Amino acid sequence: MSTTDIGLVGLAVMGQNLALNIADHGYTIAVYNRSPEKTNEFMAHCKANEPSHERLIGFADLSEFVQSIKRPRKIILLVKAGAATDATIDALLPHLEKDDIIIDGGNALWTDTIRREKDLSAKGFEFIGSGVSGGETGARFGPSLMPGGTAQAWASLEPIWRDIAAKVDPVTGAQLSGAEPGKPIEGGVSCTAHVGSDGAGHYVKMVHNGVEYIDMQLICEGYSLMKNMLGMNAGEIGQVFEKWNQGKLSSFLIEITADILQQKDPADATGDTWFVDKVLDTAGQKGTGMWTAANALELGVPANAIAEAVFARSLSALKEERVAASSILKGPTLPFESDREAIIEAIGDALYSSKICAYAQGFQLMKEAEKEYNWTLDFGTIAQIWRGGCIIRAAFLQKITDAYSNNPELKNLMLDSYFTNALHDAQNNWREVIALAVRHGIPVPAFSSALAYFDGYRSAVVPANLLQAQRDYFGAHTYERTDEPRGQFYHLDWPQTPRVQSKI
Amino acid sequence: MSTTDIGLVGLAVMGQNLALNIADHGYTIAVYNRSPEKTNEFMAHCKANEPSHERLIGFADLSEFVQSIKRPRKIILLVKAGAATDATIDALLPHLEKDDIIIDGGNALWTDTIRREKDLSAKGFEFIGSGVSGGETGARFGPSLMPGGTAQAWASLEPIWRDIAAKVDPVTGAQLSGAEPGKPIEGGVSCTAHVGSDGAGHYVKMVHNGVEYIDMQLICEGYSLMKNMLGMNAGEIGQVFEKWNQGKLSSFLIEITADILQQKDPADATGDTWFVDKVLDTAGQKGTGMWTAANALELGVPANAIAEAVFARSLSALKEERVAASSILKGPTLPFESDREAIIEAIGDALYSSKICAYAQGFQLMKEAEKEYNWTLDFGTIAQIWRGGCIIRAAFLQKITDAYSNNPELKNLMLDSYFTNALHDAQNNWREVIALAVRHGIPVPAFSSALAYFDGYRSAVVPANLLQAQRDYFGAHTYERTDEPRGQFYHLDWPQTPRVQSKI
Repeated sequence: MSTTDIGLVGLAVMGQNLALNIADHGYTIAVYNRSPEKTNEFMAHCKANEPSHERLIGFADLSEFVQSIKRPRKIILLVKAGAATDATIDALLPHLEKDDIIIDGGNALWTDTIRREKDLSAKGFEFIGSGVSGGETGARFGPSLMPGGTAQAWASLEPIWRDIAAKVDPVTGAQLSGAEPGKPIEGGVSCTAHVGSDGAGHYVKMVHNGVEYIDMQLICEGYSLMKNMLGMNAGEIGQVFEKWNQGKLSSFLIEITADILQQKDPADATGDTWFVDKVLDTAGQKGTGMWTAANALELGVPANAIAEAVFARSLSALKEERVAASSILKGPTLPFESDREAIIEAIGDALYSSKICAYAQGFQLMKEAEKEYNWTLDFGTIAQIWRGGCIIRAAFLQKITDAYSNNPELKNLMLDSYFTNALHDAQNNWREVIALAVRHGIPVPAFSSALAYFDGYRSAVVPANLLQAQRDYFGAHTYERTDEPRGQFYHLDWPQTPRVQSKI
Repeated sequence: MSTTDIGLVGLAVMGQNLALNIADHGYTIAVYNRSPEKTNEFMAHCKANEPSHERLIGFADLSEFVQSIKRPRKIILLVKAGAATDATIDALLPHLEKDDIIIDGGNALWTDTIRREKDLSAKGFEFIGSGVSGGETGARFGPSLMPGGTAQAWASLEPIWRDIAAKVDPVTGAQLSGAEPGKPIEGGVSCTAHVGSDGAGHYVKMVHNGVEYIDMQLICEGYSLMKNMLGMNAGEIGQVFEKWNQGKLSSFLIEITADILQQKDPADATGDTWFVDKVLDTAGQKGTGMWTAANALELGVPANAIAEAVFARSLSALKEERVAASSILKGPTLPFESDREAIIEAIGDALYSSKICAYAQGFQLMKEAEKEYNWTLDFGTIAQIWRGGCIIRAAFLQKITDAYSNNPELKNLMLDSYFTNALHDAQNNWREVIALAVRHGIPVPAFSSALAYFDGYRSAVVPANLLQAQRDYFGAHTYERTDEPRGQFYHLDWPQTPRVQSKI
């Protein structure tokens, strides 16, 4: 007899927390893990600590697990992306019945999701690839959820997904907080919506992560300038971020940055050491930022700032090489002679302006992907989903939702009047900060690539005329003319003199 | 009876020119094209115009074409990369015999080349994926050739490849010129060598193209600054490039840039218009730059300048959007108040420094690829192959060959004393140019990403400590400590107070 509302496979920390979140919302959930010890441990932990433990039912047998779920079954996978996901689906298949729904909550590559949806649909099953963002805490008390799949499958999953997602204030867009085990948030606007068909949800989650990479890199560049150019200590810089978190930059990442920077090293009992100064400067990456940048290259979307953020992580990994190079390659040693308070403010402006450009790139990428993969994306709704639960949650996202609600056909975020004005107001400071950084030898790849994007995008003419002429010169790649219609191509017979232009 | 020395399939312009080059060197070559009209046209053209026409033999039948070639047969493919290459190989297979060699001279993706080499090797055939660079003229009178495959296959192809490749002066590295139809260059050092096994040749050709993208973009940024900041006309800028071509920047691309910029518009009989001002500022791309940047992302090599060059082309394609945005997004309107001659010199320094960094990225990428794909690459030899025939040929490449001959284990090109000194000498000007560009609102994504790479690479400490702390905060991704051995990971239980660090 089927008694559970939903099932979940994969009891690593994300799976455990999502299962608890679902149980807290009054649903009965069947859980299964490949190694049953993990299930037993989790069940024992829940029994001792979790108010909703009676709604969690552990299974050691996959068939019994599936049979326990009400039809059409909804089975969430939170296993490793890639081969493990395929293996789990294959193991489930013999036990499923028509219209059952598999929901992949991992960080799958969207093209894998497209493939899986197609395969399962041909077998009579539904497949939802759903981005889940917000880390462990988000999974436990309200993630941002980005589901892709058929409207029918979504209709079946929607009540649960709406219940467990993060909630934001309908007016301010601020995330509602205060959830505890067994006591979820009531009310508020839910940070989920049907993103689109097949791979759309995982694609949007990937872009979310790409944007997260650049958000983090921009913060690091601001920190680096205050540390290396202004000579401030971590605690002082943390106070600046704390102040910034009260203004237009207010966001989860700025908030935790303020917290991190003001943290003392727990390994030093004297309390004289800042924690961050003891953390090794090599950042890991798990692939989604790289996928975003690589897809931007493939689709021809100039998302240079996102790519720079990925490359900055790669450079950080070359710790030994950098240490060796630092004694060979010398930079300038200039004293800092500007007004410190003014420069701190300018750094904030540089960060905000660059952030606008980076988000513009992310949304341009989704716009191009929409065409490429035949989706229908609602960009205002996507920004809304990101307002709560996820790592990039920020007041700022409400402005993006507003921009697309004012003009759903907006070509580029920078062209919305709020963002245009913000860029106009901040650009002098932004330019000043980059000029200073460049002269002081402090790398600011994200600040400067974002500015190059801004300056390039607002250039009616870029120097690609020369580049295309070069291509015509050495490779007969032809060119178009400014005084002839588009689509009309010409070639100059370069080796000859006098040179004759021919229409191709 | 087999009478021809080699065969060639695919008579588009590259195939025609390479066939003529081979015939000019005294080899008898069989040629074949899928549509026989093309073969007939080519043969008629050769008979009327080409001194070596008697050594070119056209075939309409594929079997007869193959049978005409001496064993082990060498058959060059110059067909479209991708499906057309596979289709041509499939068509040839039934006619081949053991140890016959197929040579793919197209711009194949190196992973396709690895796959094809494996498939053909299993069938008893040899497969050489050979990069061919230099455009139409290079193919005709001496290309740069980058072959990958087994040593046995290379031994068979080598005499022809050495003969038809570009030749450079053994001392200066300058390309020997003056070849004419029927009169190839005699002597000199040949711009080819066995690059490595399977896909190595096509990989190195791809990186060559990625480097070509950034070389061209850097020139465009220099041009743009002279045009938009210094208010110089195309002819004046062309004179600067002409002068630069006499010094350290001397290269094919600088040479043709000088030529292009001083070219008048052939469509304007008055002679008052510069050609380049009439060329539309949208640059095309055929994929190899994008592959290079995407592979850098995948392998974790910080080749940001190469990626910026690809993104700059993508941005150039958004002509309509840029024109529309130019009336909405405003930039600064500063008068230019510096010393014009000094700034022109500084732009040259910025170009040269950025070029060093971009090449350093290309060679770092090949170093990583060597590990990833299990090749043995000789970087000095690769630079040598690039000295003549190809688009990026330059005096500069001799310095790279010297650098790797001084130290084959060189970690990064920037660390070779010649390049270190060049960067030290030029960096103040480089920084000054970027600061000016940034203040004047002129996009210089390649100049500034190259500088960020230089400044990042020479930073013993980058701000990724904060970034990794953020990752530990929201995703429990752990961190390493500066005061503990590498490979030892820690986590802080961030939500708790007081926070406790645990060793993972």
